[in-house]
Amino acid sequence: MRYFKSDNTAAVCPPVLAALSAANDGASLPYGADSWSARLDAVLAEFFGTRVKAFTVVSGTAANSLALATMCPPWDTVLTHRESHIEHDECGTPEFFTGGAKLSLIEGEQAKVSVAAFGERLAWFEDHVHGVQPKALSITQATERGAIYTSAEVLALAELAHARGMALHMDGARFANAVVALDCHPGDITWRAGVDVLSLGVIKNGGMNAEALVFFPDSAAAATFPTDAVSQFEYRRKRGGHLVCKGRYMAAQVLAYIESGVWRRNAERANRLAQRIGVAAGTRLTAPVATNQVFVKLGVAQIAAMLDAGFAFYPWGPASAGEARFVVSWDTADADVDALCAALAGN
Amino acid sequence: MRYFKSDNTAAVCPPVLAALSAANDGASLPYGADSWSARLDAVLAEFFGTRVKAFTVVSGTAANSLALATMCPPWDTVLTHRESHIEHDECGTPEFFTGGAKLSLIEGEQAKVSVAAFGERLAWFEDHVHGVQPKALSITQATERGAIYTSAEVLALAELAHARGMALHMDGARFANAVVALDCHPGDITWRAGVDVLSLGVIKNGGMNAEALVFFPDSAAAATFPTDAVSQFEYRRKRGGHLVCKGRYMAAQVLAYIESGVWRRNAERANRLAQRIGVAAGTRLTAPVATNQVFVKLGVAQIAAMLDAGFAFYPWGPASAGEARFVVSWDTADADVDALCAALAGN
Amino acid sequence: MRYFKSDNTAAVCPPVLAALSAANDGASLPYGADSWSARLDAVLAEFFGTRVKAFTVVSGTAANSLALATMCPPWDTVLTHRESHIEHDECGTPEFFTGGAKLSLIEGEQAKVSVAAFGERLAWFEDHVHGVQPKALSITQATERGAIYTSAEVLALAELAHARGMALHMDGARFANAVVALDCHPGDITWRAGVDVLSLGVIKNGGMNAEALVFFPDSAAAATFPTDAVSQFEYRRKRGGHLVCKGRYMAAQVLAYIESGVWRRNAERANRLAQRIGVAAGTRLTAPVATNQVFVKLGVAQIAAMLDAGFAFYPWGPASAGEARFVVSWDTADADVDALCAALAGN
Amino acid sequence: MRYFKSDNTAAVCPPVLAALSAANDGASLPYGADSWSARLDAVLAEFFGTRVKAFTVVSGTAANSLALATMCPPWDTVLTHRESHIEHDECGTPEFFTGGAKLSLIEGEQAKVSVAAFGERLAWFEDHVHGVQPKALSITQATERGAIYTSAEVLALAELAHARGMALHMDGARFANAVVALDCHPGDITWRAGVDVLSLGVIKNGGMNAEALVFFPDSAAAATFPTDAVSQFEYRRKRGGHLVCKGRYMAAQVLAYIESGVWRRNAERANRLAQRIGVAAGTRLTAPVATNQVFVKLGVAQIAAMLDAGFAFYPWGPASAGEARFVVSWDTADADVDALCAALAGN
Repeated sequence: MRYFKSDNTAAVCPPVLAALSAANDGASLPYGADSWSARLDAVLAEFFGTRVKAFTVVSGTAANSLALATMCPPWDTVLTHRESHIEHDECGTPEFFTGGAKLSLIEGEQAKVSVAAFGERLAWFEDHVHGVQPKALSITQATERGAIYTSAEVLALAELAHARGMALHMDGARFANAVVALDCHPGDITWRAGVDVLSLGVIKNGGMNAEALVFFPDSAAAATFPTDAVSQFEYRRKRGGHLVCKGRYMAAQVLAYIESGVWRRNAERANRLAQRIGVAAGTRLTAPVATNQVFVKLGVAQIAAMLDAGFAFYPWGPASAGEARFVVSWDTADADVDALCAALAGN
Repeated sequence: MRYFKSDNTAAVCPPVLAALSAANDGASLPYGADSWSARLDAVLAEFFGTRVKAFTVVSGTAANSLALATMCPPWDTVLTHRESHIEHDECGTPEFFTGGAKLSLIEGEQAKVSVAAFGERLAWFEDHVHGVQPKALSITQATERGAIYTSAEVLALAELAHARGMALHMDGARFANAVVALDCHPGDITWRAGVDVLSLGVIKNGGMNAEALVFFPDSAAAATFPTDAVSQFEYRRKRGGHLVCKGRYMAAQVLAYIESGVWRRNAERANRLAQRIGVAAGTRLTAPVATNQVFVKLGVAQIAAMLDAGFAFYPWGPASAGEARFVVSWDTADADVDALCAALAGN
Repeated sequence: MRYFKSDNTAAVCPPVLAALSAANDGASLPYGADSWSARLDAVLAEFFGTRVKAFTVVSGTAANSLALATMCPPWDTVLTHRESHIEHDECGTPEFFTGGAKLSLIEGEQAKVSVAAFGERLAWFEDHVHGVQPKALSITQATERGAIYTSAEVLALAELAHARGMALHMDGARFANAVVALDCHPGDITWRAGVDVLSLGVIKNGGMNAEALVFFPDSAAAATFPTDAVSQFEYRRKRGGHLVCKGRYMAAQVLAYIESGVWRRNAERANRLAQRIGVAAGTRLTAPVATNQVFVKLGVAQIAAMLDAGFAFYPWGPASAGEARFVVSWDTADADVDALCAALAGN
Repeated sequence: MRYFKSDNTAAVCPPVLAALSAANDGASLPYGADSWSARLDAVLAEFFGTRVKAFTVVSGTAANSLALATMCPPWDTVLTHRESHIEHDECGTPEFFTGGAKLSLIEGEQAKVSVAAFGERLAWFEDHVHGVQPKALSITQATERGAIYTSAEVLALAELAHARGMALHMDGARFANAVVALDCHPGDITWRAGVDVLSLGVIKNGGMNAEALVFFPDSAAAATFPTDAVSQFEYRRKRGGHLVCKGRYMAAQVLAYIESGVWRRNAERANRLAQRIGVAAGTRLTAPVATNQVFVKLGVAQIAAMLDAGFAFYPWGPASAGEARFVVSWDTADADVDALCAALAGN
């Protein structure tokens, strides 16, 4: 099988795996009182160019939901795109961690939230006790349809959110791929653009089971964000069963991912291979290739044929649409990409 | 520092670490659809000598709470010892995962639940809509005070629980140490003694961040346990953010832990070293040394002196009691135990 | 002021008020163990022509949410119209009582769920652990836009729901008005049409603070509805603080409402007056007048003028749309309707 | 039957019933925007002699739980007596409304929390992320065993609570009976003694289905109580399904109860009759009669005989204890008390 289903089929990249062995040396205090965890904030502050408060958790789903719980009380709502991972793929995890807050959905091309659509959705809410109030906006970078938000686009959303007293969360599922694609500084599309909390996105791009949730106290939202959100976070994480015992193996993954620079190398390679697939797909692309996801209109018969031929990927959207998604991982073999390109070109 | 605070300060044992590297080979389907996860039930069935349905999670706290949530509706209660980890050390995680079920507390020496105390606590509940109903009993093996339940003791509790329509959960925080201490088969103190669900206890005894939750469909409780508890479990785990993406690295830890036999070797060594400390403590022991935990009445001044001397351990109970707990890990150095024994003997 | 804001501005109708005084005679067992509560099931069974299990609660919001909680686990979803009361006007109460289940929204004219739109929405859900599963459909009779579902329409929705393993809830906010408008038997648009649970709708049509939630064990959904839903309901209600102490005053309201026939008389009068308003509105009606709600396109200026003139009503939808809703209560004065008709005719 | 089971078997007292009829006059804005609700704060401010913010709900259980939810986050704990109503008789309602906070239990004679026992229980909690933190103390006035807290006793508890950053809730289940028994001002045992929130206790003493929850912003706890607790309350109440539609009938009950002075007259009568029963019970009293509850050691046989003789009351505690509780309501017939006294004297 040649895997293009998702970047979560990938293995762990060498620097991260090596960091686990390196950390495996004698006794160490548990629950984040170790020396690896102690360096986390400083390393990520350097990475982002601003003060941060960071926490590790074991899944992006947990990171997203714990973040949203700090932003939105149970009787309020988080706005997000209808195709977002938090709505479509997390089985109600945000609702669990927020204590039953709603997700209120926004439509838009390429799973992207536009300022116009966000504003229109906001008009639906009335400021009275009979309805939930919007308290957070969550966007995905890159989106579930492979699109990216520029720093200007993020900032425009942040300004509208903050003006309404809402906080801005970024699900950085493919954050590194977006940074590479935009050729920008990690701070440009986060705190400098008004992001209050970021799910960093480590696992898909080479990690094992550590994600980092990053709070930016100096984002433009400082005025509206609950002041005790960060201090509450520790309790929320513990209570979710996500404060893992041997914390050094969590922090070590994130440190290695950032400090070795592998975050960039892995994303660059995956994006580059995706571009090759995009060229092979040609006019059948349903959207320009921005990161490591490629969406192609193949037709129902072609999808069936390629699955039969040993390519593992997901048909996307309604089966009748005949659209396919191909995702490249940091460790996708060149030969697999060659084969895919050949198969696409031959069609 | 010489660490005797807890076995969670230990590193990862070699077979488990090696298994992570071995699993790091190419693409693999995510979310438990990998070949390692596929073997989990069979390997644990062999280990326990009965059919099982097992799931991995990243912490004992998550394992316990997810287990209890399958046993107890939000409007009912779990009985447990007042000193149990689920009551004292999990910051309300069981309440979170059950949706607000109560923990109703039982007193008893050495953090152990006796049949008499369990029966007495049960008498408190009236079968009407105004009060919570008891739906589960949770016991810890070995207890938070280092005691162990014999298979006869477990069975007696299970029979009373099942007669009342309750399920029995065992928090196997130091399960391997108890099996070794009792020199019994793992099945003897679990399903054969009426345990319905077990938190296996991998991390303290040499794992990295994988615990296993084990359901025993053939325990004596089959009649009273909710029939859809196991099928619901997958949704509960996902919704808790605990269905990790790259599942192979979870299952691989548990498989290596069991199949290499390291579970036994690690526990044997830790128990043996604890016996040495017990001998050194002599009549100051506040309870016989059963597993890898040692409780010693040192006095307030002695505790302070030993902390100053570089021994890292916890005073236990009220500070004025002058009691200390020493826990031996699988990787505690012989030299550290030598030093501790000398210090204790010298006092 | 002449009130056309909502039928919840109405007073309590005489038979219901008289029933409270009649019940105020000496001691009576609390929490539903009184003789009024004891008659509730039989009286409603007679009313609906089938076995029922009924419970009183103090608000329609509580009735709806408790009903949905019996139908949908926390990790699943309830489908409903985007303009439904449970989505738009209950501030997350369904999410609270279900423990965080989602509401998944359906679009449609006049706040009505069509079979086609329901089927299309269902296609969105995939049967895997990563997404919530649809477990209930909730429709409002009459809808928030004044439309009614015929028995054939309800049945078609029920059949699709039941085929998918979902239960059907009807929010009978203006149930009596719908029965009168359809000139049908109460059973025709409930259990005979596949409704599993009904929020009866007493308060708007003349009650004080008692609603009834009615389970229909003999609806077509018997096979898919959780078998212990009804038995759990008592615990859910208690735990929501909705098992009121002096239960006789709750049951007495519902009994009087049904047995006196005032449910029909009140609805008939309100519907009749609404028809008069509809005639006065003429071609400006945005939908035919079916029950006691009238939607009229007045224009922004006209709305302002009529509010100034002492008519109390809600502009409906976006302010720029210039649409108004007028609701007639059982006790709206003829003179107020005369005045409204004159004002509309004069425009 | 002669009812001494509980004061919740009583009817509604005339001033309250009359107030419902008086309020039944024409249209009125819903959801607390009526003129009765508008007067609630002022009338209760006058009653207590301080600023208040008050809300009506339909049950004492809802009042208590909503109050606790404003004081205690989901990951923390409320301290209370083991025999308290919130622990023993509310089926987990506090856990539901708090989102899963714990109740941590305190022992003590007559269901009363002493400063010593409170302090001892506090010592159990450690200030770290692994355990819940104490955030509120809830006491019952009068207690479930008929005892009362003097203003000095309340203040001593409040001072300890506030010093620890905890808020103080009083479940005023039989608040009027306590005020009468203590012959004090209602403010003396509430805000002047450091109570932050009071469940007023209307229904047992003559109301129908309206309780009032009273926040005291000027209690001594102003510094530690969450600043947005009161503003959140409106959302919490709505979301619990407890913001009833026709709010005038809620407020009217509480206004009539206070303004007519019936709160005092009813309590005086009930207390006086209880004193007579106490005299008849003589040395068999297990505690002095303080309010309208009488606890008598009758023996198992005597209890059975009196139940057979048509006295309706509860055996209290373990059946083998042979203790009985007799509660007098505002409307208990003199003849019933005569008969009970005779029966007790004859034994």
